[in-house]
Amino acid sequence: MAAAVVLLSGGLDSYTAAAMLKADGYELHALSIRYGQRHARELESAARVAAALGVKQRLELQVDLARVGGSALTADIEVPKDRGIDGSIPVTYVPARNTVFLSLALAWAEALGAFDIGIGANALDYSGYPDCRPEYLEAFERLANLATRAGVEGARFRIHAPLLHLSKAQIIARGLALGLDYGLTHSCYDPLPDGRPCGRCDSCVLRAKGFAEAGAKDPVLP
Amino acid sequence: MAAAVVLLSGGLDSYTAAAMLKADGYELHALSIRYGQRHARELESAARVAAALGVKQRLELQVDLARVGGSALTADIEVPKDRGIDGSIPVTYVPARNTVFLSLALAWAEALGAFDIGIGANALDYSGYPDCRPEYLEAFERLANLATRAGVEGARFRIHAPLLHLSKAQIIARGLALGLDYGLTHSCYDPLPDGRPCGRCDSCVLRAKGFAEAGAKDPVLP
Repeated sequence: MAAAVVLLSGGLDSYTAAAMLKADGYELHALSIRYGQRHARELESAARVAAALGVKQRLELQVDLARVGGSALTADIEVPKDRGIDGSIPVTYVPARNTVFLSLALAWAEALGAFDIGIGANALDYSGYPDCRPEYLEAFERLANLATRAGVEGARFRIHAPLLHLSKAQIIARGLALGLDYGLTHSCYDPLPDGRPCGRCDSCVLRAKGFAEAGAKDPVLP
Repeated sequence: MAAAVVLLSGGLDSYTAAAMLKADGYELHALSIRYGQRHARELESAARVAAALGVKQRLELQVDLARVGGSALTADIEVPKDRGIDGSIPVTYVPARNTVFLSLALAWAEALGAFDIGIGANALDYSGYPDCRPEYLEAFERLANLATRAGVEGARFRIHAPLLHLSKAQIIARGLALGLDYGLTHSCYDPLPDGRPCGRCDSCVLRAKGFAEAGAKDPVLP
């Protein structure tokens, strides 16, 4: 069984992407990053999701992107609520985040002897982040094969982004068909003090739209 | 004055590369990474070098690549001595290290509003690491412009690797001409318990060859 490193945030998308790789026969090695995100409670969900997926192993790495700043997810900048998702790049964009995450996934994959990397990037019902677009992921895959010993020696790294062209409703429908328990996940960027989702950030709005369009009930909501 | 983020390890190459960017008129923002390297004493040199360069600011980020493993620089694998440098990739290669480092430099650059990134990569007198080659650095530059808000909005990130095609002797000659004090630097991968360089790892061997060919005395040696 081929091993794959999957980036697992604890949210709905990465859970579904990982489950799709598992369904394709990959042995999962889950990587989560504690990067100074204000919604670090997503990492508790990542641990639950990893257990539900029966991953081979889980690694949590820490890199403090809050010291780099420049984002509402890591710095003292307000998370926009009800902003209307219009294709512009919001302040919740974290500079170079997916590049940092994919680099760490690549490092771990190479050390494990794995050549497949999974990410829950989506370029349809998303916040307009540049590092979720197909051309970005293709460029990273090309880089991975130039960056590594394995690439030089003839291996081919593959970046798997099975959600890339799906709507949020389609993602949820796939996950439900695979028997996923979305009650384990956390999506909100700016949870209330008691941990409940705010319901108004991009991530909550896109999730609610997805469940509505999929005709399903979100199990994290009352 | 344009700002540049420079990766500063505390070694001879990154010091020289940063000094060349400074001579070209850039304001330096120095980034050092504590990644679990067995020669973490290089970070003390990085602080001294940054002060000598008069950098605008210095940031040290931590990311524990030792948990990823796969390298003699981070795992319990012996650092080769007197191996003969033959173009093969040695066990001191750290999986995806420059990709992780450049990603963090990109994150900080974007947060600062800087578009220039300096790295001391060298593809002539080097250990054969894949992520020091020109084609790798070109691929990263391309990625940087796809990965970021700044890139999408029309900015152009530039990866500066001014040492790429220089011999170690030429690097040292440039640095001495710029008045650099190489006594501040640390290059050895596997220092002796008292901190002195081992004299036999790739990094020591390449450094000694460079000073010899440049007709100069290495100030860190007795």
